[in-house]
Amino acid sequence: MSNKLTHIDQEGNPTMVDVSEKSETHRSAKASSKVILPEAVMQELQKNDFNGKKGSIIHTSIISGIMAAKKTSELIPFCHQINLSDCKVNIQPHGNELHITCEAKTVGKTGVEMEALTGASVAALTIYDMCKALSHHITIQETRLLKKQGGKSDFSIT
Amino acid sequence: MSNKLTHIDQEGNPTMVDVSEKSETHRSAKASSKVILPEAVMQELQKNDFNGKKGSIIHTSIISGIMAAKKTSELIPFCHQINLSDCKVNIQPHGNELHITCEAKTVGKTGVEMEALTGASVAALTIYDMCKALSHHITIQETRLLKKQGGKSDFSIT
Amino acid sequence: MSNKLTHIDQEGNPTMVDVSEKSETHRSAKASSKVILPEAVMQELQKNDFNGKKGSIIHTSIISGIMAAKKTSELIPFCHQINLSDCKVNIQPHGNELHITCEAKTVGKTGVEMEALTGASVAALTIYDMCKALSHHITIQETRLLKKQGGKSDFSIT
Amino acid sequence: MSNKLTHIDQEGNPTMVDVSEKSETHRSAKASSKVILPEAVMQELQKNDFNGKKGSIIHTSIISGIMAAKKTSELIPFCHQINLSDCKVNIQPHGNELHITCEAKTVGKTGVEMEALTGASVAALTIYDMCKALSHHITIQETRLLKKQGGKSDFSIT
Amino acid sequence: MSNKLTHIDQEGNPTMVDVSEKSETHRSAKASSKVILPEAVMQELQKNDFNGKKGSIIHTSIISGIMAAKKTSELIPFCHQINLSDCKVNIQPHGNELHITCEAKTVGKTGVEMEALTGASVAALTIYDMCKALSHHITIQETRLLKKQGGKSDFSIT
Amino acid sequence: MSNKLTHIDQEGNPTMVDVSEKSETHRSAKASSKVILPEAVMQELQKNDFNGKKGSIIHTSIISGIMAAKKTSELIPFCHQINLSDCKVNIQPHGNELHITCEAKTVGKTGVEMEALTGASVAALTIYDMCKALSHHITIQETRLLKKQGGKSDFSIT
Repeated sequence: MSNKLTHIDQEGNPTMVDVSEKSETHRSAKASSKVILPEAVMQELQKNDFNGKKGSIIHTSIISGIMAAKKTSELIPFCHQINLSDCKVNIQPHGNELHITCEAKTVGKTGVEMEALTGASVAALTIYDMCKALSHHITIQETRLLKKQGGKSDFSIT
Repeated sequence: MSNKLTHIDQEGNPTMVDVSEKSETHRSAKASSKVILPEAVMQELQKNDFNGKKGSIIHTSIISGIMAAKKTSELIPFCHQINLSDCKVNIQPHGNELHITCEAKTVGKTGVEMEALTGASVAALTIYDMCKALSHHITIQETRLLKKQGGKSDFSIT
Repeated sequence: MSNKLTHIDQEGNPTMVDVSEKSETHRSAKASSKVILPEAVMQELQKNDFNGKKGSIIHTSIISGIMAAKKTSELIPFCHQINLSDCKVNIQPHGNELHITCEAKTVGKTGVEMEALTGASVAALTIYDMCKALSHHITIQETRLLKKQGGKSDFSIT
Repeated sequence: MSNKLTHIDQEGNPTMVDVSEKSETHRSAKASSKVILPEAVMQELQKNDFNGKKGSIIHTSIISGIMAAKKTSELIPFCHQINLSDCKVNIQPHGNELHITCEAKTVGKTGVEMEALTGASVAALTIYDMCKALSHHITIQETRLLKKQGGKSDFSIT
Repeated sequence: MSNKLTHIDQEGNPTMVDVSEKSETHRSAKASSKVILPEAVMQELQKNDFNGKKGSIIHTSIISGIMAAKKTSELIPFCHQINLSDCKVNIQPHGNELHITCEAKTVGKTGVEMEALTGASVAALTIYDMCKALSHHITIQETRLLKKQGGKSDFSIT
Repeated sequence: MSNKLTHIDQEGNPTMVDVSEKSETHRSAKASSKVILPEAVMQELQKNDFNGKKGSIIHTSIISGIMAAKKTSELIPFCHQINLSDCKVNIQPHGNELHITCEAKTVGKTGVEMEALTGASVAALTIYDMCKALSHHITIQETRLLKKQGGKSDFSIT
């Protein structure tokens, strides 16, 4: 663990981190999030076969997550602009939950964990939007990083 | 509770909801989210007095949340474009958690719950970004709607 | 037919049109576009059941068209910012062609024909992108306005 | 010709293509589009000398096309972010048609055909917007790729 | 003159201003900026007849200013989203200076001075960009509001 | 000094500059701008300790400047897309003026002077926005490049 807040300068002002001298490496990060739906909503979704014949909710959420991951540096003030070489969003039902993962990759000077987290978060928000006509008792839980590779130190939740 | 998925049309394709005939009313929505930090990170933040003399982390997150709320219709595919008349983000420490609320308002034909949820989510992601040099063991929890007013039916978590 | 180029001022410079004094009315516009695919590509798409069980190509194009319609004023320099009250994109196969329509609505001071045309165009470009691994012999044809209502004068292709 | 839809994964969901392992090469692509104008509109444009002393319509369309090419990855859901090293839009009158070409270049891991097509399409839409006060009987035709170089296989329309 | 900073809340955090209860009025604002060019650059521009036959520099700057004015709420963190009903940018040579004005209008709950100032500023930056191959000794001066109308109190520089 | 306008092609139309063949080098640029405030406003800001305990105005302006620098290629029509490796905004009071500097860095084929100038300009506009409830007699002065390094020729104001 580092012992300093890299986004705060010596005067206490917010700041970007200079990555000019870092070398370009293959980097990847995977994040997850969960959308907890009321049981009645989940049944309605399954009745509509959300993951099969008419995949609209899943497809729309996947697309929004990937598009949002590409927009990360516009949303998070000090994120560097990163050209992703890949971004995959996966959404699976588990009981009355939808489990989302978002994996981002780049070849660059800085990591893509915020891209993965942003992709998972916006995919979750889109599920919320697509289901909110049925209920507002929907909660997004456990948005977090699962693993990252290619930077100074790798990370993996165990 | 409605019994249909308004964002899926009769052919099973994703679709926007037509609000042309709805009347303009004062609408507001309030959402919340929590960022759970490792105790050592919270101590580091407090040592740097994040909520006091040098409020950079809090300020940056507030600003990112408000700016993201204004971008909601670019992120969530079927959200209508809404000109917010107000958006407030509040962030408070509770033990080793940072509690975020985002309240959005408009005078318009459709509600602002997605704006409030997006603002809270992106403020949470920004806290993550500002703290991730200290640890990646950070989790965003309980992103949800607290209340909404001004639409067909009000909503409030009890 | 008007007899002047409203986007050119008296000095010959490009300019926006002032709509401050126009009244707010219900406005709609519908545009169309066609994507002409090589027969082999169309067969491959149908083998993958693009309009049925796994509607990814159609869904992705619909979503991109709606999101682009919302971005029209960022793309077309002198388009006014318009909050759409509805936007529908429909895509249907006809032989080896995919026929796209995009219908946009607003309640406002100016028409939404550019929004409908932009939505149809970007949906067509997305189909191109989704199919280009199969062939680059794809052509987008007949992007045009079908009808508009609610402005100074209605329009309909006959 | 490839025999698979690279933007659909094994479960039938839409997906980005992983280009992480591809090498960086000089890439270029050239696309074209045509705007068909009613003869009376074309005469009005020529009376205003659109390509000469007061080049506003041509200039505005060129600028919009280049700016849109830079936005391609925001419009087309699975396009990778690409930093263009060049983008040229050219517009020439032919009878009552305006012929547009857009050529894009990059040094990168993936091609720029969608950037060229997007630039040509938005330049065409801007011409439509600049002329629509004169007539809505305007059609955009033959938006297609003319050639591309620098990827796995070159392409050229013959 | 008000005696408080409306963008700072009671805890000292940055905040948006709530305009929900304000009434919609016709509002306009006009701002100006000046670009000071080395004499040799101005001569080169005039040799190229920048304001006449080939108006590219002026046209490009006008277009960029209008497009930026529409983006104001994305750039200035607490600006409300405003749909402009008009935006005009005018650029005139005076000796070795280019004088820019930007006038913005809306019918809404809040003023458009930031839109006018942003339009003038970005038009000035674009002139800089178009001329910087000739010299970097270019300065942007006196970006300020000339007048505003339609809000709580009118303003005019005398 | 070059003797041609690189953004105008042989037909007099605006155009991007092709940087495809340029090599990637470390590049940096530093720009400055000044906001001149009425004395009463400056006193009010200092009473609120804008640079100390409650740094909201300074923080908000820094953040907006950095975010705008990342958006430069969306604002300036022919700016190439550049992934900044660093961007720092600094704001200091001097009498009744706030002095802004913005320093941008990249490793790439083209310079970042427009990014530095855009960051400084938008930081200045944000200060204006945060103070305009107190007075509209605020002027932005001397927006200019201080130095640039890493391109064909270095530049420094002396």
